[in-house]
Amino acid sequence: MDYRINLPEQEMPKQWYNVLPDLNPPLAPPLDPVTHQPLGPEKLQAIFPMAVIEQEMSSQRWIEIPEPVWDIYRLFRPTPLVRAHRLEAALGTKAKIYYKNESLSPAGSHKPNTAIAQAYYNKQEGVQRLTTETGAGQWGTALSFACKMFGLECTVYMVRCSYEQKPYRGILIRSYGAEVFPSPTDKTNAGRAVLAENPNSGGSLGLAISEAVEDAATHDNTKYSLGSVLNHVLLHQTITGLEVQKQLALAGEKPDVLVGCVGGGSNFGGLVLPFVPEKMHGKGPRFVAVEPKACPTLTKGEFRYDYGDMAKMTPLLKMHTLGSGYFPPPIHAGGLRYHGDAPIVSHLVDQGMVEPRSYYQNDVFEAAKLFLQTEGFLPAPETSHAIKAAIDVARESDPGTVIVFLYSGHGLLDLGAYDAYNQGNLKDDTFSECDLQNALATCPKINI
Amino acid sequence: MDYRINLPEQEMPKQWYNVLPDLNPPLAPPLDPVTHQPLGPEKLQAIFPMAVIEQEMSSQRWIEIPEPVWDIYRLFRPTPLVRAHRLEAALGTKAKIYYKNESLSPAGSHKPNTAIAQAYYNKQEGVQRLTTETGAGQWGTALSFACKMFGLECTVYMVRCSYEQKPYRGILIRSYGAEVFPSPTDKTNAGRAVLAENPNSGGSLGLAISEAVEDAATHDNTKYSLGSVLNHVLLHQTITGLEVQKQLALAGEKPDVLVGCVGGGSNFGGLVLPFVPEKMHGKGPRFVAVEPKACPTLTKGEFRYDYGDMAKMTPLLKMHTLGSGYFPPPIHAGGLRYHGDAPIVSHLVDQGMVEPRSYYQNDVFEAAKLFLQTEGFLPAPETSHAIKAAIDVARESDPGTVIVFLYSGHGLLDLGAYDAYNQGNLKDDTFSECDLQNALATCPKINI
Repeated sequence: MDYRINLPEQEMPKQWYNVLPDLNPPLAPPLDPVTHQPLGPEKLQAIFPMAVIEQEMSSQRWIEIPEPVWDIYRLFRPTPLVRAHRLEAALGTKAKIYYKNESLSPAGSHKPNTAIAQAYYNKQEGVQRLTTETGAGQWGTALSFACKMFGLECTVYMVRCSYEQKPYRGILIRSYGAEVFPSPTDKTNAGRAVLAENPNSGGSLGLAISEAVEDAATHDNTKYSLGSVLNHVLLHQTITGLEVQKQLALAGEKPDVLVGCVGGGSNFGGLVLPFVPEKMHGKGPRFVAVEPKACPTLTKGEFRYDYGDMAKMTPLLKMHTLGSGYFPPPIHAGGLRYHGDAPIVSHLVDQGMVEPRSYYQNDVFEAAKLFLQTEGFLPAPETSHAIKAAIDVARESDPGTVIVFLYSGHGLLDLGAYDAYNQGNLKDDTFSECDLQNALATCPKINI
Repeated sequence: MDYRINLPEQEMPKQWYNVLPDLNPPLAPPLDPVTHQPLGPEKLQAIFPMAVIEQEMSSQRWIEIPEPVWDIYRLFRPTPLVRAHRLEAALGTKAKIYYKNESLSPAGSHKPNTAIAQAYYNKQEGVQRLTTETGAGQWGTALSFACKMFGLECTVYMVRCSYEQKPYRGILIRSYGAEVFPSPTDKTNAGRAVLAENPNSGGSLGLAISEAVEDAATHDNTKYSLGSVLNHVLLHQTITGLEVQKQLALAGEKPDVLVGCVGGGSNFGGLVLPFVPEKMHGKGPRFVAVEPKACPTLTKGEFRYDYGDMAKMTPLLKMHTLGSGYFPPPIHAGGLRYHGDAPIVSHLVDQGMVEPRSYYQNDVFEAAKLFLQTEGFLPAPETSHAIKAAIDVARESDPGTVIVFLYSGHGLLDLGAYDAYNQGNLKDDTFSECDLQNALATCPKINI
């Protein structure tokens, strides 16, 4: 058996899978942030191109991947599905562990799958500049790359604590030709308000989103791009799960458990959504979603309407949330520091289709080092959450169980975090009932 | 046509190609550093295992890749050969540019091809610890990874200026379980001698080699491992050129020009040596070797016997050299800061089979950014020398010319260098006739 299952280029999917028409009950609609009424597509036009808005609400099960997007995917796709033989041997497990290696993209993560699509649709509609936020920097890197491919300008608001923890990210984003600012900045009302209260604020994803949305909404020919959470983002990411289906078929395997880390939910969603139709019929693999104990949205949060950002500018989304005002501790998995979760993923959790788990970061880095020292590759801290869970699932499972996890990104720009772990300097931040009640106090009261 | 030509795993070569029996005239022998007489294999046993010594002098054309080595190669090999369509389009060239992507290995470069083999042979002979030097850190990372695969300890002496320029390298090396020290250290006589003269010395590869060799020679169960220069290293690297031959055949192409950067010569040698037999019959592709103007071994050095290290502990090798006492300026392509070159590569240059070129680092980074912004991937500064030359060759060539360069490593741990370039802070160090005469004054006078 080959270690790496490579799909030929001509086998790369030509369509994304849209789960919306297959959800039953259907997804709760987004609400207007002011009137609290279901939101019409026209309300989103200030910040998104029409093609993206249509995908956000589409009832079409399969959506064509535009040829120029597919053509850029070819730079790195299909990505290999890899059997982690050496990790299995080190664990002494008889389970089979596979990982879908999305770290081989130019930006080093799964994020280009949607960045390329979003940049393309914006370019088609005459947009000249995209704004966005980034946590650990994976998304900012991906959008910078994608914008360069289509000749768009790009402005990135990077959560300040990550900006400082991971200085190489900013250099890489600039090298792609984009601009990047540590958030909170003094460039937006949202940023200035936080700085006035706390000039040393480390920032949060929710705040960086507010800054990027405000920038887009207040400038001509400028739109906003989000790297996770929304339906169209998960749609674009389904290319990973669709490839996994083909690759497992090539290997003659049926998956028993799918594992992904969850920040906003895009890599997890991309992996599992193509398996939802089977699941609706009571078949198909288990879905395991993994998050940090410092930001335990799915395991501790409430399923209710909340804002996507701190400044309450975005539509209200029904999702698992810790409260849009919550500032998570500065754990190194910056991409998992988000108060909410994708409505689609939250819906599946609510329907009992997903098993959420949470871990402390020291346990996660221990798993990461075991992976590094057996499989050779250095995982991102976010990805390492999935590795930790895959290891635990393997330990709990019967011989022959087929476990697939999404290897969402490499950790080469996160080595500061490994240094802290190697030196025993990582804190195991947690989150209490009391934190939860305080955080949720900022949520709007909506009964739908 | 596919962007990436993937070779199936079962097509990965099972043997390395040894060029020695095909060289005519034969390679000049290594000499004893004290007696200046040809060196018997027994003299090398203090620092190398027998299997490696045999390969260093073998007259066998094909050498079997041991199954445990091949098995670890499978973690990342065969590597793809990629058509750089977007770079071609940006250049407006009608030449075809391919790159062999060795950056996808766990260590991020071609270096594991020999590190894995060397770790294996040492393990077989009961060695417990390997010592080595590293410049930019690619080699130290690779050997740390390889040692972990076979349960060996590993000690890395890293050239101090690179250790400081690229702090993430040390963290990665330690995360693989190895120890790493900035060289010069106070752990060896060679290091202490340099520190006594200049406590702030930035170090050199030649000095770090002295330290690593001294460590191995003075400790039990410890051997030394070199990442370039020697015949057995180039032998192990031929897997890249052998894969390229198969991949070009799959694509229906015949190569016209092969391009590689040269520090010690291992990535260049690995790419071109399998094409030497054709070349001996006046056929086959052009070989273009690329180096920095700050350390222009092939373009300005003399072809003569010299030591491989600063402390004159290694055998004398006949090679292009700037003098083993030469300290190159601290350019960011740390892997190209070596005073000498592989005897095999030097021999081919002397025979007129190789066209050497040299570049300033600002021109090299300009090429790197063009590659980044078209193909998406961030190249190492060393690799960027090959990119610059491939671009120039494309510009000089007829339509349809097939150019293949070796993409030896990624630059994700070299982002400090990109920052310096982006900010206009890179110096274009050069090398004068006068520098050359001073540097060569340290060479021994040998008439063979």
